[in-house]
Amino acid sequence: MKHKTILENAIKAMRERTYYAQYPEAPSGKIYGETANEDAKKRFETLSQSNFTQLLQQGAAGTVGEESSPYGVPIKVQYPTFSVDTLIQNAQNAQKSWANTSYAQRADILIETLEQMKSLFFDIAYATMHTTGQAFMMSFQASGPHAADRALEAIAVGYEELSRYPVTTVRWDKPLGKVNAVLDKRFYVVPRGIGLVIGCSTFPVWNTVPGVYANLITGNPTIVKPHPKAILPIAIWIAKMQEVFKNAGIDPHIIQLAPDSTQNPITKLLAEHPAIKLIDFTGSSHFGNYIENLPNKITFTEKSGVNSVIIESFADVENALDNLAFSVSLYSGQMCTAPQNFFIPKNGVDTNIGHLSFDEVVQKFADKVKGLAQNPKMGAGVLGAIQSEDTYQRIQNTKNQGYKVILEPQPIQNPEFPNARTSSPLLIQVNATEYEKYAQELFGPIAFIIQTENVEQSVELAKKLVEDKGGLTLSVYTAKPDVKENILHSLLPVSIAIAFNLSGPTWVNQSAGFSDFHGTGGNKAGNAAYTTPEFIVKRFTVVGVREQA
Amino acid sequence: MKHKTILENAIKAMRERTYYAQYPEAPSGKIYGETANEDAKKRFETLSQSNFTQLLQQGAAGTVGEESSPYGVPIKVQYPTFSVDTLIQNAQNAQKSWANTSYAQRADILIETLEQMKSLFFDIAYATMHTTGQAFMMSFQASGPHAADRALEAIAVGYEELSRYPVTTVRWDKPLGKVNAVLDKRFYVVPRGIGLVIGCSTFPVWNTVPGVYANLITGNPTIVKPHPKAILPIAIWIAKMQEVFKNAGIDPHIIQLAPDSTQNPITKLLAEHPAIKLIDFTGSSHFGNYIENLPNKITFTEKSGVNSVIIESFADVENALDNLAFSVSLYSGQMCTAPQNFFIPKNGVDTNIGHLSFDEVVQKFADKVKGLAQNPKMGAGVLGAIQSEDTYQRIQNTKNQGYKVILEPQPIQNPEFPNARTSSPLLIQVNATEYEKYAQELFGPIAFIIQTENVEQSVELAKKLVEDKGGLTLSVYTAKPDVKENILHSLLPVSIAIAFNLSGPTWVNQSAGFSDFHGTGGNKAGNAAYTTPEFIVKRFTVVGVREQA
Repeated sequence: MKHKTILENAIKAMRERTYYAQYPEAPSGKIYGETANEDAKKRFETLSQSNFTQLLQQGAAGTVGEESSPYGVPIKVQYPTFSVDTLIQNAQNAQKSWANTSYAQRADILIETLEQMKSLFFDIAYATMHTTGQAFMMSFQASGPHAADRALEAIAVGYEELSRYPVTTVRWDKPLGKVNAVLDKRFYVVPRGIGLVIGCSTFPVWNTVPGVYANLITGNPTIVKPHPKAILPIAIWIAKMQEVFKNAGIDPHIIQLAPDSTQNPITKLLAEHPAIKLIDFTGSSHFGNYIENLPNKITFTEKSGVNSVIIESFADVENALDNLAFSVSLYSGQMCTAPQNFFIPKNGVDTNIGHLSFDEVVQKFADKVKGLAQNPKMGAGVLGAIQSEDTYQRIQNTKNQGYKVILEPQPIQNPEFPNARTSSPLLIQVNATEYEKYAQELFGPIAFIIQTENVEQSVELAKKLVEDKGGLTLSVYTAKPDVKENILHSLLPVSIAIAFNLSGPTWVNQSAGFSDFHGTGGNKAGNAAYTTPEFIVKRFTVVGVREQA
Repeated sequence: MKHKTILENAIKAMRERTYYAQYPEAPSGKIYGETANEDAKKRFETLSQSNFTQLLQQGAAGTVGEESSPYGVPIKVQYPTFSVDTLIQNAQNAQKSWANTSYAQRADILIETLEQMKSLFFDIAYATMHTTGQAFMMSFQASGPHAADRALEAIAVGYEELSRYPVTTVRWDKPLGKVNAVLDKRFYVVPRGIGLVIGCSTFPVWNTVPGVYANLITGNPTIVKPHPKAILPIAIWIAKMQEVFKNAGIDPHIIQLAPDSTQNPITKLLAEHPAIKLIDFTGSSHFGNYIENLPNKITFTEKSGVNSVIIESFADVENALDNLAFSVSLYSGQMCTAPQNFFIPKNGVDTNIGHLSFDEVVQKFADKVKGLAQNPKMGAGVLGAIQSEDTYQRIQNTKNQGYKVILEPQPIQNPEFPNARTSSPLLIQVNATEYEKYAQELFGPIAFIIQTENVEQSVELAKKLVEDKGGLTLSVYTAKPDVKENILHSLLPVSIAIAFNLSGPTWVNQSAGFSDFHGTGGNKAGNAAYTTPEFIVKRFTVVGVREQA
């Protein structure tokens, strides 16, 4: 096995859950090649104006392409389209050559796709930037090394789960007194069928590859239906996968891209096709609920949710509020893990610099958010651009709904891309009693400061939000160990990832591969978590075959 | 840990999947005590005429009891009833004391329940016999040692899955160049909530305990809703569990029995209660489909299916047909794993004693089935009694539908219980084209001999049956290695357990704990398999808690 060490390191890392990364996150010339960035940038200039012809897929029927850069750069890529029947037929034809590989071969080939992907991390970064609006650094990290690490997670958990069952014949010899009952047994892992992975517009690679690699390691051919506005990053990724498969003697149709358009969507046609057995989905709760309720499908969803911050007291108020200001600003709040609702008691909070009133905490926080957005060295690089016009309009509409506005949204200066669609966060203050106002996901740079009676009410409301709407992260600030324990045990039953007192260079929005689970699968924000055994074992069944010895 | 060796042996056995049993299946005085059988028999005579008062459950509201012995012995047990609200409240109150135990403590206490259950295996056997109609030997084995082994499986897989995550705090230390990002992380297993396990009338213990122990090892309090006609065996089991829990300082309401009556069923009220998060079900496809489609529930089902036998050729025709005759007769076909449809090519089959025509094979098979039923030493002990009047009527109705009857059903002589409700198997011959006739589960001692054009058609129809109706077992007889390989690879994709050429003292109806999976979860006969990791990991989520170090 060529990549045995990589596989073993990944398995070990997930057992220990300490820091580990297979793919370095720094977009550094020393790691990825001194000219890697410049070369990719030039390639992107050509690529973004051309037809995408790198896919090794048979049966194209037409072309689509409607991407536009939130940075205002023209994008003119056209992608081939394929009928649902062609996609299904291609997948079924390819299935056998893949099912015949051993688990070790499968893992090896899949890791090889990641190893070769390294040479395209910068290309994928530019493609991500100019479809999602992420700043360059996040584009590189999220769609490159972080995505590859999450893919490797899926391979590693998959390999472990497949390896549970004896791969050679087992003799079963049962003593019955005078005679023995003797059988020979084999165990076959049977893939569920064809997998469909439905991508989103904001993280077209990071949220797509876990399902793709989980399907493939367990033997299921896969069709990726990207968001019509964010095809290029995952198209580059899949084209490289297909090349690696072909070179390994595997039918490249084991993974296919299924581009469509807003006008002629094929997602439901694919999802409802009886040959599709597995569906991974990232996107809205509305569509996610439709996916989860399709009969005879096994689904893995990440839907919308509302993430809260409970502030009780601060051990390090400056660093904590810096951390929170960064969290609401990062990619302009367009992360499913970004905090939206800040619960602060009306009597203010104790801090390391003395008691601060409610208004003082809010003002300090607003100043930091504003300062970051206006910082010429950091603003554009942290906030990036607004992916869709809908999100941009949501900010304006919310601002004009008569809320008490703490901080007005402002454009972000971006000298490199003066036409970028940008906005600093809108901060709004409401009362705890106005539950229906803040108990909804307002995707984008919009945050609610919620004045509560006391911390008990904050916890109660944050908990209720998880139960009612789901969530991916819950951040808590308290300098008091007993309060921390109480809050922890109050929140655990609703199954949401919890972070206490983040005040350094780690933000609640981030989940680290091999250590943090992304999602829990236990609340309304989705039924899946990267990467638990559950994310893997639902994708196959085990068939025992007995034979008279 | 008191029962560490038992736990480790079970984990090892499941990895190897060779023969293993923790609880000896022989109802032998040497193993279980010389007077165990006689003592239990006497206790049963009292128990079967009394109110069942052994449960340690608070809040009884009335009594029910409508069991009747298929052997014609009067049963007069009355059980306490509990309102749905009382059951839920009891479970919620008990949850905390259980969640606070370590995984090792939990496993220890649960294994202790099995160890102590040994002293009641004979009591449970008589209770099983006089509710289900199983013969004594099966009653003892299925509801005693085999059930305990399946329970131990669930504990073992559960313990393994829980032990994946670090139980102490892990330091995550990420180098960022000049500084490090340092967090402390803990991982909490969060149970899903309250589990409901819905029992069936034919295997009230064996089909109930896997879900019960899977729920409990993963921290979920559990309510068992037994079939109104088969309460006593699982009532004895649960009362013993409650006693063990109480002695260990655990609130015994962590496991509760919820008896009801045919007139006032509470199953749907329980299943639809929002606090019930997990449902294990064994029973009809109709009710099972209702359970699977309940919103916001995680379900584990074993529904009905149709099991086939494909006969191509025999390497050992006498022993093979003896084996099949035993299979259709065992507990009068009232096993979800019993074969119903026998596909035999019209041109007959090659055997070790020369070619036999279709009619010769059928006649030989019918003779063996008849011989077994009429064998005074074996008949009653193999066939037992018919559990319900419905099943008995089904035999008569099917016989009178104008089919070609190969073997008429006859009463079985049972000198010990002259009033037993018994029937030998009804064998019917149909043509392959009459799909709608045999493509339905006719629960009980009813089998179809299906004349096919050739073995290819047999395989095609058996496969279609699995796809259309589901099934738990598929038995194949062929003396030709290449035919075997072809049939195997043709059948694998539909995900059903396959047995080749069984001709010794193992029958397709049986699945051996620690080695065979019961069900695959991959066809319409149900979505669960005893005991895959999937049967366990869906019952909890993992919550990561991060903290600034």
